[in-house]
Amino acid sequence: MHAYRSHTCAQLTKDNVGETVRLSGWVHRVRDHGGILFIDLRDTYGVTQVLCDPDSAAFADVEKVRSEWCIRIDGEVKARDPELVNPKLPTGEIEVFVRDIEVLGAAKELPLMVFGDQEYPEETRLKYRYLDLRRDVMQDSMKMRSDVVRSMRTRMWDNGFREFQTPIITASSPEGARDFLVPSRLHPGKFYALPQAPQQFKQLIMVSGYDKYFQIAPCFRDEDPRADRSPTDFYQLDMEMSFVTQQDVFDTISPVLAGVFQEFGNGRKVDAPNEWPQISYRDSALWYGTDKPDLRNPIKMQVVSEHFAGSGFAIFAKLLEQEGTEIRAIPAPTGGSRKFCDRMNAFAQKEGLPGMGYIFWRETDGQMEAAGPLAKNIGPERTEAIRQQLGLGVGDAAFFLGGKPATFEKVAGKARTVIGDELGLTDKDRFAFAWIVDFPIYEKDEETGAIDFEHNPFSMPQGGMDALLGDPLEVKGYQYDLACNGYELVSGAIRNHKPEIMIKAFELAGYGEEEVKNRFGALFNAFHYGAPPHGGCAAGIDRIVMLLADQSNIREVMMFPMNQRAEDLMMNAPSDPANEQLRELSLRIIPQDD
Amino acid sequence: MHAYRSHTCAQLTKDNVGETVRLSGWVHRVRDHGGILFIDLRDTYGVTQVLCDPDSAAFADVEKVRSEWCIRIDGEVKARDPELVNPKLPTGEIEVFVRDIEVLGAAKELPLMVFGDQEYPEETRLKYRYLDLRRDVMQDSMKMRSDVVRSMRTRMWDNGFREFQTPIITASSPEGARDFLVPSRLHPGKFYALPQAPQQFKQLIMVSGYDKYFQIAPCFRDEDPRADRSPTDFYQLDMEMSFVTQQDVFDTISPVLAGVFQEFGNGRKVDAPNEWPQISYRDSALWYGTDKPDLRNPIKMQVVSEHFAGSGFAIFAKLLEQEGTEIRAIPAPTGGSRKFCDRMNAFAQKEGLPGMGYIFWRETDGQMEAAGPLAKNIGPERTEAIRQQLGLGVGDAAFFLGGKPATFEKVAGKARTVIGDELGLTDKDRFAFAWIVDFPIYEKDEETGAIDFEHNPFSMPQGGMDALLGDPLEVKGYQYDLACNGYELVSGAIRNHKPEIMIKAFELAGYGEEEVKNRFGALFNAFHYGAPPHGGCAAGIDRIVMLLADQSNIREVMMFPMNQRAEDLMMNAPSDPANEQLRELSLRIIPQDD
Repeated sequence: MHAYRSHTCAQLTKDNVGETVRLSGWVHRVRDHGGILFIDLRDTYGVTQVLCDPDSAAFADVEKVRSEWCIRIDGEVKARDPELVNPKLPTGEIEVFVRDIEVLGAAKELPLMVFGDQEYPEETRLKYRYLDLRRDVMQDSMKMRSDVVRSMRTRMWDNGFREFQTPIITASSPEGARDFLVPSRLHPGKFYALPQAPQQFKQLIMVSGYDKYFQIAPCFRDEDPRADRSPTDFYQLDMEMSFVTQQDVFDTISPVLAGVFQEFGNGRKVDAPNEWPQISYRDSALWYGTDKPDLRNPIKMQVVSEHFAGSGFAIFAKLLEQEGTEIRAIPAPTGGSRKFCDRMNAFAQKEGLPGMGYIFWRETDGQMEAAGPLAKNIGPERTEAIRQQLGLGVGDAAFFLGGKPATFEKVAGKARTVIGDELGLTDKDRFAFAWIVDFPIYEKDEETGAIDFEHNPFSMPQGGMDALLGDPLEVKGYQYDLACNGYELVSGAIRNHKPEIMIKAFELAGYGEEEVKNRFGALFNAFHYGAPPHGGCAAGIDRIVMLLADQSNIREVMMFPMNQRAEDLMMNAPSDPANEQLRELSLRIIPQDD
Repeated sequence: MHAYRSHTCAQLTKDNVGETVRLSGWVHRVRDHGGILFIDLRDTYGVTQVLCDPDSAAFADVEKVRSEWCIRIDGEVKARDPELVNPKLPTGEIEVFVRDIEVLGAAKELPLMVFGDQEYPEETRLKYRYLDLRRDVMQDSMKMRSDVVRSMRTRMWDNGFREFQTPIITASSPEGARDFLVPSRLHPGKFYALPQAPQQFKQLIMVSGYDKYFQIAPCFRDEDPRADRSPTDFYQLDMEMSFVTQQDVFDTISPVLAGVFQEFGNGRKVDAPNEWPQISYRDSALWYGTDKPDLRNPIKMQVVSEHFAGSGFAIFAKLLEQEGTEIRAIPAPTGGSRKFCDRMNAFAQKEGLPGMGYIFWRETDGQMEAAGPLAKNIGPERTEAIRQQLGLGVGDAAFFLGGKPATFEKVAGKARTVIGDELGLTDKDRFAFAWIVDFPIYEKDEETGAIDFEHNPFSMPQGGMDALLGDPLEVKGYQYDLACNGYELVSGAIRNHKPEIMIKAFELAGYGEEEVKNRFGALFNAFHYGAPPHGGCAAGIDRIVMLLADQSNIREVMMFPMNQRAEDLMMNAPSDPANEQLRELSLRIIPQDD
């Protein structure tokens, strides 16, 4: 017989009754039923009930085992009495009578229990991750993560892509975040950087003629931690294609992602890729108050300035006399009660706005009546025009925000989310996708008035060189995101592969040719040797798994995450270097009280 | 029609004759045949011949293109004249008459040619890697590498393994090489390390109960460069299993690797896994002079001390009076000429030995005769006994080396290789595998006499705790390598999962319990919470691809390798950090003239 097991803990059925078997696993639970010891023996595949009565030679040893000891047992498979069959368990028809036991690994007193649903502080869970990872929910999440990545790979291969690995110890690839640096021992005083993304490499692979590239790529950004972001490294499904338009990229990646969500979405509805809307960056801000809209929420905001211009609601009427101001409405179907409207008004105040005006429609004496102070101020005609524009009726409400959109857009977006949630309008059992397109290439610093890249400098401006000769703030890029349920899942672009356009684009942002060469020298040089048009995108794997696993903390879907302070409490990282290591790297640490 | 292509450059056949098509690709070659311009248009899939005559409106533009320009053409597919059909090309039946051309990316004068087989200095190739990577041989190698990795993954999944990603920014995981360090910004003065291998993590995954793990894992070692080693990062197929013996690991990984070699070996013979010998570390040293034997070479060395003890060959006879000395023979079938024997003797002298004695057998007057000075010295009886022991005959030779094995073993191994090669005994069209087992856990420092770990401290000693109570130098580990054609492809072990044996093992090497906790704290702690017996191995992917691609330089099978000085000439890495970066990291560079 094998040294450790003849079967896993999920294999035995009544077909095995009468056999002598060997099982290895962990003691999930021990129960003493009238002197007979029952152990749920667990491995990653399942659980088998084993039992030992005082007549067994093994009894004295079985008595000693505790939760999470790792043991090997030999025993005989017996059928359970019909009334004791557990139909929920694949092994529920049998139990194993222990004849021999070997303790493979004993366990000290447990800092956290594997069995049960008790909650533990995250620090405890991360420090004893090897125990935390034994819990059902973690086993399921980790296996799903692994399966999701596999599915992505298979789908990319099936689409004619090959996976190519790009360097990890390399040069800085500025993407707007901070690099992790790696000091060089062979070149004292010089540093490598870990890539923020394989951006430059994948573009170089296109220039090298490989046509279709993908990679499950680790990315490294020295960022301040957040719940939905790892403070050090994260993974993305990174892809790039040559000789493509923006639509080609959409047509390629959309079915891959839709397929993954269908496969692992556990029955939740997945919008079909050909129904994913393409929404311009500006429309998304207007309609949803964000560039990562949650389209499970049917609420779409609208501009209603005309109804307030010159109206009796002085605050808005005056506001609209200033340039660049707007009044926008958030329709709230079924939200037509004063209580709800007041609560939302309070929400806006908590978010730092003066409040949200509202109108709600009710039935009084068989007649529709518009209620709320705003309705009174602007009068019935304007109120009715608003109602008709928004398509609302009795029982509904609308909220109003005014000013320069930049000042209230974000809160409007949040209010839309809260309204959708509170009124139960948002379909929780759905994955709703939208491509956000036409991102501006440049943005203006409100304080200095300086023009800089809005996102990254790799995107091809729509209209090419000609577009760069006009107002920079009007230049849109072939740059896009995919939003899903309020998260940004994918980001990408058709790249700027023309060196002369690259130089012009940098010039508009105030950078000279030297800057292009310094920051993106490899790409800039490569573009002088027959560069193909190309584009692609990157999908955040951790975030996709987080959505699929219905988690809101990225650390629930990573095997060994850092804590929020970018520490690994289990491995003790970061730690003090040895003097010898610093000497080899020609480095000295600046004391903190300098 | 699509913006860039209706077909790839490998798709058109005579079925497409008459169609108007659009192709994009690179100008592989341009030829002018009597005023008509012929272009071999290339993409990653193939080549299509396109042509343009002076009547075409596109002619003036086509005339301008040069090698490696990236272009898009529209044109009409025509059948080639029967005598011009190129049967070697999938598109060899047709050609495309250019009607329109667009330059997608022009090219400056090329620092290296993509077409043809000209050799370029490695520095040029690495600096312009995007051109180098366009060459046929590189395209083939990179695609094969990608396909090999895919095949490994599929085979591991098919064996019930899941891939789990382990952290890259983490704590030092001492494996005997130097760590790359990453300074922490959030924790000034502290450093992360990049993993030399996911060793501790994969063992922690076993303690976490996942049973079967694998990963195509990047590994980071700050090592001085070598031709068959990357100076920074390399990839391994890393795997680990719980509840297994050494033989289980062999039975799992052997078919995976054999399958990959069969799939990509291009017809070369692959030894069947059940025929892979298991050779002890000591036997391998004796028989082959190395722990990575090349078994394509049939030569097996033997101990022949008894024939020289007390013989007339005074040098060996005297040598054997010292303790620990041996005489070993390298049989050389078909090497029986004085010329060859003298050349091999000279080889040994070049390698720093006094020389190699030899005997060769020839036929003189219809009689077998043993020739060479050694045969005379020891006389015909001993000579004949040696011949019989080695199984040699007329036309063969044998070489002899004596002393303490450590002093000549390595040269003996090299001589064996040279003899096998020169005599044509080594079958070049074969992949010959051998498991090398029973590695010693400890070795003795010849100078200080101190005992230290021979390899790494993770292996379970054969015999467990009991074995550690005897002579440390006699302790063998459940530790193994897989050798193929003279390279170490795989290394692994059944791990020591018992904390008390871990402490004892370290104690023998002179380290206290504190050392165990400092160096392997996470593992050591985890082993106190129900650790399963486990083991696994790691296979070097770069080296496997190198063997399959029949290359001897690892940089030929990596997309963007560093040069031998650990520099990336294309990306300009490593480079000087910005002062701001150093300040954020609380670091100062020690000037080199300190």
